[in-house]
Amino acid sequence: MKVFIIGTGLIGGSFAIDIKAAFNEAVIYGVDQSQEHLDKALKLGIIDHKSDFENLTHADLVIVAIPVDKTVELLPIILDHVNDDSLVFDVGSTKQKLCETISNHHKRRNYLAAHPIAGTEFSGPQAAIANLYRGKTNIICEVEKTAFKLQERGMEVFSRLGMRIRYMDPISHDKHIAYVSHLSHISSFMLGKTVIEKEKNERDIFDMAGSGFASTVRLAKSSPAMWAPIFKHNKENVIETLQEYIANLTQFKKLMEEDDFDEIYNEMECTNHIKSILKGIS
Amino acid sequence: MKVFIIGTGLIGGSFAIDIKAAFNEAVIYGVDQSQEHLDKALKLGIIDHKSDFENLTHADLVIVAIPVDKTVELLPIILDHVNDDSLVFDVGSTKQKLCETISNHHKRRNYLAAHPIAGTEFSGPQAAIANLYRGKTNIICEVEKTAFKLQERGMEVFSRLGMRIRYMDPISHDKHIAYVSHLSHISSFMLGKTVIEKEKNERDIFDMAGSGFASTVRLAKSSPAMWAPIFKHNKENVIETLQEYIANLTQFKKLMEEDDFDEIYNEMECTNHIKSILKGIS
Repeated sequence: MKVFIIGTGLIGGSFAIDIKAAFNEAVIYGVDQSQEHLDKALKLGIIDHKSDFENLTHADLVIVAIPVDKTVELLPIILDHVNDDSLVFDVGSTKQKLCETISNHHKRRNYLAAHPIAGTEFSGPQAAIANLYRGKTNIICEVEKTAFKLQERGMEVFSRLGMRIRYMDPISHDKHIAYVSHLSHISSFMLGKTVIEKEKNERDIFDMAGSGFASTVRLAKSSPAMWAPIFKHNKENVIETLQEYIANLTQFKKLMEEDDFDEIYNEMECTNHIKSILKGIS
Repeated sequence: MKVFIIGTGLIGGSFAIDIKAAFNEAVIYGVDQSQEHLDKALKLGIIDHKSDFENLTHADLVIVAIPVDKTVELLPIILDHVNDDSLVFDVGSTKQKLCETISNHHKRRNYLAAHPIAGTEFSGPQAAIANLYRGKTNIICEVEKTAFKLQERGMEVFSRLGMRIRYMDPISHDKHIAYVSHLSHISSFMLGKTVIEKEKNERDIFDMAGSGFASTVRLAKSSPAMWAPIFKHNKENVIETLQEYIANLTQFKKLMEEDDFDEIYNEMECTNHIKSILKGIS
């Protein structure tokens, strides 16, 4: 099985590692606009060969793991290059714009819209790790638009990598993922910004920061090149989440100003049951 | 060494475990308003004996690990009960109000104001763990007001438990800790609230949540009984941090509304150097 990884960073590289381990016959070809990333991926043994779009015609499987704006731009071209029996899936964090862009492409049936809910705050080939996808949810959109035989190939890969599949339409996907993922990233970036601004002249104040602070700002380490396009693609949903988040924070501040600490206690207690909701996520 | 732990939960219980391991001769007495907690702490071997305020006169060391409002209420009474050679330290997350309350107490010299920057989102005796304090920062306020011999006893405990000491005045402590700890907790609670409110009718949407969401809302599992009093004690500083955080989120939303994704990219890139700041915190 010839597998082309477009974008050999954390997400694409981690797919490469797991697919190589799960399929004896897999040969991994890397395509990346960064020669440095390609060289690193080759040196680390993540890919077997460097390659390019011209060779996509030989691919059995193409995984597109680049920022979502680049995916919208390049997916039509990638589909133009692949053969009729090739499966192409992407792994982007927004799905509506991409599914719209590709809806009338003559090779739409070769494409599967996927979003594996997995990652870390790191990026680049050196961030790729084995078993990143094991036990994780993979959201598939518009599965009915993919050729049945190619759906099966995709499912075989996801299954061997240990992923749980959920099906969803692209509009619902983008709406809900704004709440459970995109908002967290903004919350974290702005928390980091607020504290850095305040403490810029007192660097050693971060000695006072504990694991709680580290946990809440962890996502502020994420790649802007990946996240700015996600916010752009999912603009309306993300703005809605921000409005609600800001309203809740403002209400909390108002309760504090009014010395209503009983209600603050209640607010926190009501949110405490996030414990049970989060069970199983780590 | 007779050690009295007032409040046998996560923080007090973890001190008990480590002190018992570090001092062969230590005997641990537990005092708690909850009989259930006391029984559990005894059963778990965290304390050696159940005790009460009347026995405090025998204490060599008293650790007050209860919510900050209760500490303000009970610390004067605890000091009334201890003998002249006893060291009492608290571990609360606010220091100004407490230091003010106790400033004219006739046993002020027996008290050391401490804030070990350590914890988890869990609570109760069953949450107590060994080595919670190893490598962590312990902030000591107004050290000069504690009897020298008793300072030494405290430092011996902190040193054997592997803590790094930083000295700070209570006003600075409360101001900076609002940024690097208290704001994180509100950010996390309100994030949890926003998402739970939105998705309350679609519970399985949390299947879409990944480790990023779990990390940002982890602190929303924290105990309201502990945190509501902290926000009350540190009201002015916390309101200031909230104002700045809300302003930054509002500015981010405005940039999105204006489609200024270049500036959004810049904002995130500027905050990315939190990576180097956070090095060493986990």
